[in-house]
Amino acid sequence: MNAPTHPDHLLPQLKLRDVPQALIEALKARFADRCSTALVVREQHGRDESSFAAPPPAAVVFAESTADVADAVRLAAQYAVPVIPFGVGTSLEGHLLAVQGGISVDVSRMNKVLSINAEDLTVTVQPGVTRKQLNEEVKSTGLFFPIDPGADATLGGMSATRASGTNAVRYGTMRENVLALEIVTAAGDVIRTGTRAKKSSAGYDLTRLMVGSEGTLGVITEVTVKLYPLPEAISAAICSFPSIEAAVRTTIQIIQLGVPIARVELIDSNTVRMVNAHSKLGLREEPMLLMEFHGSPGSVKEQAETVQEIAADLGGNAFEWASTPEERTRLWTARHNAYFAAIQSRPGCRAISTDTCVPISRLADCLLDSVSEADASGIPYFLVGHVGDGNFHFGYLIDPDKPEEREVAEGLNHKLVNRALSLEGTCTGEHGIGLHKMDFLVSETGGGAVDMMRTIKRALDPQNIMNPGKIFRL
Amino acid sequence: MNAPTHPDHLLPQLKLRDVPQALIEALKARFADRCSTALVVREQHGRDESSFAAPPPAAVVFAESTADVADAVRLAAQYAVPVIPFGVGTSLEGHLLAVQGGISVDVSRMNKVLSINAEDLTVTVQPGVTRKQLNEEVKSTGLFFPIDPGADATLGGMSATRASGTNAVRYGTMRENVLALEIVTAAGDVIRTGTRAKKSSAGYDLTRLMVGSEGTLGVITEVTVKLYPLPEAISAAICSFPSIEAAVRTTIQIIQLGVPIARVELIDSNTVRMVNAHSKLGLREEPMLLMEFHGSPGSVKEQAETVQEIAADLGGNAFEWASTPEERTRLWTARHNAYFAAIQSRPGCRAISTDTCVPISRLADCLLDSVSEADASGIPYFLVGHVGDGNFHFGYLIDPDKPEEREVAEGLNHKLVNRALSLEGTCTGEHGIGLHKMDFLVSETGGGAVDMMRTIKRALDPQNIMNPGKIFRL
Repeated sequence: MNAPTHPDHLLPQLKLRDVPQALIEALKARFADRCSTALVVREQHGRDESSFAAPPPAAVVFAESTADVADAVRLAAQYAVPVIPFGVGTSLEGHLLAVQGGISVDVSRMNKVLSINAEDLTVTVQPGVTRKQLNEEVKSTGLFFPIDPGADATLGGMSATRASGTNAVRYGTMRENVLALEIVTAAGDVIRTGTRAKKSSAGYDLTRLMVGSEGTLGVITEVTVKLYPLPEAISAAICSFPSIEAAVRTTIQIIQLGVPIARVELIDSNTVRMVNAHSKLGLREEPMLLMEFHGSPGSVKEQAETVQEIAADLGGNAFEWASTPEERTRLWTARHNAYFAAIQSRPGCRAISTDTCVPISRLADCLLDSVSEADASGIPYFLVGHVGDGNFHFGYLIDPDKPEEREVAEGLNHKLVNRALSLEGTCTGEHGIGLHKMDFLVSETGGGAVDMMRTIKRALDPQNIMNPGKIFRL
Repeated sequence: MNAPTHPDHLLPQLKLRDVPQALIEALKARFADRCSTALVVREQHGRDESSFAAPPPAAVVFAESTADVADAVRLAAQYAVPVIPFGVGTSLEGHLLAVQGGISVDVSRMNKVLSINAEDLTVTVQPGVTRKQLNEEVKSTGLFFPIDPGADATLGGMSATRASGTNAVRYGTMRENVLALEIVTAAGDVIRTGTRAKKSSAGYDLTRLMVGSEGTLGVITEVTVKLYPLPEAISAAICSFPSIEAAVRTTIQIIQLGVPIARVELIDSNTVRMVNAHSKLGLREEPMLLMEFHGSPGSVKEQAETVQEIAADLGGNAFEWASTPEERTRLWTARHNAYFAAIQSRPGCRAISTDTCVPISRLADCLLDSVSEADASGIPYFLVGHVGDGNFHFGYLIDPDKPEEREVAEGLNHKLVNRALSLEGTCTGEHGIGLHKMDFLVSETGGGAVDMMRTIKRALDPQNIMNPGKIFRL
């Protein structure tokens, strides 16, 4: 780990700013051994799950409290040095890379669940709490936190990228589930947005301005989210289809009928093959929907019957049910490991992941043409999707030593994004803009909206020190 | 209608700015008879359902297109003159008052449903479309728009105040239901926020920054919202309780159990009496929950059984069911007319309406003490509430000729808000800050958050012409 992990893709955005030695000394004075300049630590904090590379940050501060974060930001602000918040490093679009230099503020030690308000279905946590940890800690209350982006990300990071995942079709995304935040601003001040009330019309919705701002407007130091009663009954099923189209059309009908399905995931036959190899499953190697139903026993039964009818009409094969928690866990683990299964299927490869999301009626139009293009390209790929939300991911598995493969993959992604935008969709359903989709953002929203974002950024962070170089060029 | 409607409460916030004759002439040149300076028109546009008064705007422009709005704003910006968007005038906190002078831009003629995308459960409308009109126009698709603030408000106005109402407990508020907006900025530019995709991580959430911004950041000229399949089965019921406490505790249990109830409204015995008199109903004059269940027949039955059990345990009297659409409409009309019924119960009175919202577990604590205080004050009042969300409204019925009554009512509201804030709630669940709750906003969020709002406002509207004098003092 002595070099950036992904040296294959150096960034044009690199504009390193100076980090004065005086700042490093001030940080060491304030944080002692919780400020590290060791190369291995810096490098660990200078990358994420994306395929980009940049020099690591000049120092890493391990914050243990809001006051720590505020002091680190205040010191950095004194020297106009960039600050990059870091959770557990699972972001996918280069959010954590120090493309303009600066310091990383690691909040993973701020991992306390601060207050569980079971009777209000809310919980307040420090930003370093991960979703699995949270679910472990609230288990005894009979409640759970549904947002599930696959990776065991932190609540701070999930808020910052407006994450979602498999349960979003039923429970919404971080946008709908964050009630309140504590934020350290670019000046190092601490503010609170929102309350524990379920709704409010009290002024600008700063909570939702911060959710999805990718660390560019402040550091999240506390998160209050909604919890949900564990469903009385849960049932999971898989269903294979003769074609992706049949699986997608089934999904569209499920959503249009208003079935409150909790999860409906598409896995293409490539992915099934990879997952079978990786997780030792014997799934039928055909396009597949992986579904989950939550509710009362009666409601789960009703939902499942409706869905089975729709699937049968469209050529879906007999459902296979997984009703025990163990069977369900095995299926979902396989789903969540799809990425790693895919990577293993082509040793040494990297995955370039797409993230378009379109209105549900456009899903087939968007997906099927893109599948044809991917098939024609000759690049191996996998395809998984939160199709109930119109969101899916191609992972193009490229050989990093072959720049022409990257070029082909980027070309496929370009076509896909343009198609999604022409179908009134978005270039990113849940991964964020980061370093890679700035131009897509302009195509999607128009220059005026991006200018408005820039204006807000400049006003709230006049020195441009909060995770600079992400979302848009300033 | 030759004088401001509510001359009883002149505003300390008045800071009239000059509206140059040159602007009026430019507007007349551009809009001809769609720019009115007639006193009666101006006065109609210089008030809302609040009890505040201010001199009317200098002119009213009747916009028929986004281009009209953009031109009006651009002209106003040239002269640094305030612009106040106007829908149908149902806001409750003085949002529409020209407290700094300026012009009113009436968008009520922009009342076209632009595109119904039934298969995606979305619809795009001009801002002057009202919620009832919208539901009429989408009826044939088998879909409906659930947000129901009582008044037949416009979608533009509902977006601007982040409205909600009776169905929010199940379907969320405008915060959760607006997908995308078109906005005319303070510079007169037209931008788009959001897409028709159900979710997105594409940059700052400008949609939700605009939702609830009360016209202070731009004029909403197009709104895309979610629709929902009309429930297969709908059932409404009323249940009387021996005390407000019993009704509230029933509500708390319903929510904590996760029953997906569509509506659960509290009506106190005062209100029942007023509604009986006004709507010629024979409801038992006791505290009452008015409920509605949506879903499949099986699910509705299940929900109703659960709720009946809870209510019975807490002393609720036998349910009365209203299963025909006519009966339901009669009940909900009575609920929506509660405000007018109350006003009629004390001829010549005005209602001062409160709007606190607290976490559900705090509802009894917040409500019961406030009821005692209201009872002790001697001021007649009514009490209704979207209690499933922890949101309720006292309406203190004051004699406008008796300033001491206003003072007592304001004192009651003050105590109530402070109580709600101490219980981690908000001063406004759905009405907005407007003119009246600026100090409450500071108490609720802290000065730092309000400073951040001000910074955003100054950046996006440097001349402070977009509905100035609302939400915070600049």
